[in-house]
Amino acid sequence: MSRLDSVIERLSAQRACLDWAASAIAGLTGDVLELGLGNGRTFDHLRSMLPDRRILVFERQVNAHPDCIPADEDLLLGDFLETLPQAARMVGSSVALIHADTGTGDKAASVAMAAMIAPLLVPLSQAGTILVSDQPLPDPAFAPLGLPEGVRPGRYHIHKRI
Amino acid sequence: MSRLDSVIERLSAQRACLDWAASAIAGLTGDVLELGLGNGRTFDHLRSMLPDRRILVFERQVNAHPDCIPADEDLLLGDFLETLPQAARMVGSSVALIHADTGTGDKAASVAMAAMIAPLLVPLSQAGTILVSDQPLPDPAFAPLGLPEGVRPGRYHIHKRI
Repeated sequence: MSRLDSVIERLSAQRACLDWAASAIAGLTGDVLELGLGNGRTFDHLRSMLPDRRILVFERQVNAHPDCIPADEDLLLGDFLETLPQAARMVGSSVALIHADTGTGDKAASVAMAAMIAPLLVPLSQAGTILVSDQPLPDPAFAPLGLPEGVRPGRYHIHKRI
Repeated sequence: MSRLDSVIERLSAQRACLDWAASAIAGLTGDVLELGLGNGRTFDHLRSMLPDRRILVFERQVNAHPDCIPADEDLLLGDFLETLPQAARMVGSSVALIHADTGTGDKAASVAMAAMIAPLLVPLSQAGTILVSDQPLPDPAFAPLGLPEGVRPGRYHIHKRI
């Protein structure tokens, strides 16, 4: 598999999971959290799929396409480990969907980061909250779900808050 | 169409055109030119599809994944308008395939650049050389071809040297 094949697989998996999740939360009120803005592609996708939801974005430093930068009041700048606890004051535990694309090229560091982030997502979520992520989220509060058709197991992850 | 949809469409079009071209040149001897290395994804794809061809890469400044940097002797660093004329000394007119992904976010500049590059590709190519590009190549030596199934017209371009 070439790097071109790999990125197409990754982005297609991302889209399939986000599209599935957007439908899955139809009956659940609450905001959306986007952990990792990057160039803003998935933020743009989420706001197109969920125009009536507030999307709160977490990013260390904004480096997105100018069209894809959230409003100041929807952007939490800084280390996830500091901004996620702050977010509880903004959204309580009313979150319907969390998308965490927090991995980097460093596999070990990405897994370690996901392990640190997962427990911080528990107080923000409610029964039924859907979590879509590039890493598994190792917390007993989150049950792994099956992936949409066409997504290779392990390529992306979906969990549901118990 | 979100930016996520758009990038998936673009990368899938790129791959479909390159895969088609790799088959189309089966009966044609000659090297491959990659104009624009970027992060090295299409270079990686081309070398996986065409392991027996030399791939000469043109780039202003290398900023690719470390795994996807060509050997020094296959890399022409600098402005395309200067390095393409130099390439004639290396490959003569024995090129079988040219992939030119030279566009930037600036549409007008990208079109102007393609217009300047196109005539420089004429002396490098032979009858039957396939050109795959992100911009149309406005030169009477290059006839536009139809696109592979699933590629939206205008999303990517294939020409054949007359």
